[in-house]
Amino acid sequence: MQDIDVKTEHRVTKIDPKGKRIEVVNLANSQTQWFSYDRLIIATGARSRRLNIPGSNAKNIFTLKDLQDGLRIKNYIDEKRPGQVAILGGGFIGLEMCEAFRLRNLETFLFCRRDLPAGNLEKEISEKILKALQENGVHFITYQEPAAFRLDSNGEVTSLETNQTHFPADMILMAVGVIPNVEIANEAGAELGKTGAIRTDMAQRTNLADIYTAGDCCEVFNLVSQDWVHTPLGDIANKQGRTAGENAAGGNATFSGVVGSAAFKVFELEVAFTGLGMQMARQYGFDADSQVIEAESKVGYMPGSKQMLIKLIFDRQSGRLLGAQMAGKEGVARRINALAVALHQKMTVDEISRLDFAYAPPFSAPFDPILIAAEQASRKVQRS
Amino acid sequence: MQDIDVKTEHRVTKIDPKGKRIEVVNLANSQTQWFSYDRLIIATGARSRRLNIPGSNAKNIFTLKDLQDGLRIKNYIDEKRPGQVAILGGGFIGLEMCEAFRLRNLETFLFCRRDLPAGNLEKEISEKILKALQENGVHFITYQEPAAFRLDSNGEVTSLETNQTHFPADMILMAVGVIPNVEIANEAGAELGKTGAIRTDMAQRTNLADIYTAGDCCEVFNLVSQDWVHTPLGDIANKQGRTAGENAAGGNATFSGVVGSAAFKVFELEVAFTGLGMQMARQYGFDADSQVIEAESKVGYMPGSKQMLIKLIFDRQSGRLLGAQMAGKEGVARRINALAVALHQKMTVDEISRLDFAYAPPFSAPFDPILIAAEQASRKVQRS
Repeated sequence: MQDIDVKTEHRVTKIDPKGKRIEVVNLANSQTQWFSYDRLIIATGARSRRLNIPGSNAKNIFTLKDLQDGLRIKNYIDEKRPGQVAILGGGFIGLEMCEAFRLRNLETFLFCRRDLPAGNLEKEISEKILKALQENGVHFITYQEPAAFRLDSNGEVTSLETNQTHFPADMILMAVGVIPNVEIANEAGAELGKTGAIRTDMAQRTNLADIYTAGDCCEVFNLVSQDWVHTPLGDIANKQGRTAGENAAGGNATFSGVVGSAAFKVFELEVAFTGLGMQMARQYGFDADSQVIEAESKVGYMPGSKQMLIKLIFDRQSGRLLGAQMAGKEGVARRINALAVALHQKMTVDEISRLDFAYAPPFSAPFDPILIAAEQASRKVQRS
Repeated sequence: MQDIDVKTEHRVTKIDPKGKRIEVVNLANSQTQWFSYDRLIIATGARSRRLNIPGSNAKNIFTLKDLQDGLRIKNYIDEKRPGQVAILGGGFIGLEMCEAFRLRNLETFLFCRRDLPAGNLEKEISEKILKALQENGVHFITYQEPAAFRLDSNGEVTSLETNQTHFPADMILMAVGVIPNVEIANEAGAELGKTGAIRTDMAQRTNLADIYTAGDCCEVFNLVSQDWVHTPLGDIANKQGRTAGENAAGGNATFSGVVGSAAFKVFELEVAFTGLGMQMARQYGFDADSQVIEAESKVGYMPGSKQMLIKLIFDRQSGRLLGAQMAGKEGVARRINALAVALHQKMTVDEISRLDFAYAPPFSAPFDPILIAAEQASRKVQRS
């Protein structure tokens, strides 16, 4: 094996799967060298997507993917003291950053293509998120398609033009999703899935011999839809990485997939979801129905009890749970995991309604909101 | 059907299952009458156990089972301003009351027969509880067998004598468990289980025709041990009541049982558990092993993250989860329910370690403490 000067930064520029070697460039002196491997793991991650519109490379347009991005944003605010920020995108990065910007007293404008934030979630949840934004002074601007940025002579954005009008802005956060870093893998012959991420299997193999993949650059199997999806989340990357590592070292590990669980926080509002939403469930051929309830997060007489909303998505024929989404200011995020287990186990809403949960007044009502929702859902299941 | 004056309080004194009628006494005028039924539900609940030692009927000895008990305690404190209270029993009622008494600035002494509180839980959990008591100024007195109460001329306790010594006390809380109210049912021929509570089945039937039972007076099936147990908890009573009610009205409902989930709070410490402890698991013939971990309740850099302890109990041969216990100051009680679902589904620790939980830094680390514990436990499972 060739030596690499580990003290300087290198970048992989090419993979040669036949020769079982990678081309590496030393960023300090631009020299390239080949480095041979027995087994290779492609863990190239993903990068923030940037809108390809005029002015989009301005210095005060930021994306947020890693710690360095976060520091760049923080430093810019510290130095330039911007008065107002425009966030493009109503996904969870944009939503989480609203809180950070409001804490720094920036006037915060969130621009969205639709009428509600978090467009991948159910309408009832998105409405709760919108309310949380408004309660915290975020300006939520609907139906805007960004068209261009106007720059000053320093190359800094001064305003955002959309299909409708234009808005002054001292800085921009582009939070419009991520793109998997697949170019080097793809050039080497690694197949991509229909999502554009690297195709893999439950052993984290690619189609290329002795080449594995893990993390935000590759797909993952969704156990509810039984389909390969691109879900770039840290906990999934972590599990895939362990599997790929074990197998690259000669082991026999498998990672069977996810059910699609995630959570985020918008100011005080906790949002959590698992499985499929209504639209996806129908797209995958389920006879999907849903049940929405609002309930107290603990026994009503306990201090700190808050209303929470639960929506269950289930198959009307079999009663099988297909997904769950929750929003509330207390006790939401950790509640969802019980339903993630139920999804893994393909449980029905009727079975869920009979679960024995831990009850104590500081933590829930005798009938946990999940059990109430499941019980009500079970009445909609067709009894044959 | 006979008329009953619903404006005065009545008590059932006898059940005549052959005649399908109950004897009812009007408490206002002591007159009895018979009242016939088509179907009867016995939901007589449980009462607090009282130690049968000299002086135990003194006016300032309290038990706590219902709201009236709570008001009696509150009123006594308001009126008599006791300086110190002795709690007998280290179970969850005694533990929860420590917080209430300390909030009223009473010197609080908890007397226990053993060296640790919550003797039904695992030692590691009990040690956390002991620490919480001590941090909050509760005096935990070990290895004391109450022998008698010394009373003053007003019939009020002035001190507690134990097998070892004696302790002055201005009021006593006896928190030594509950006894199911089975006397009337048993006299009528209702069979009791080995726990002393009314024997029932998954339709909440008793052995007597057209007589159902529900709640703290009857047994419940434990799905992990596959044994009938007495678990007098509000959420179980609620589910049994619905089942009994539906069936008494001609329905066909079943309540298949519990896995043994419960939670309580000792000052800031949340304690939650589900399934069997080590000793019970072994008693029921499992080849039980355990895994203890301590982990952060959320990502360590998030404000408010607290250490939590998890102990998993599992079968070494099959890897099947048998029980879980947790203690910590944040994010414990609602975490246990995911493991309750796993118990219902007879999942192995290996399967649990691969679950897709919702991850976000304000709520957990990428690997939730449950997943870490399950992963470590899975390494102890015998691979055949």
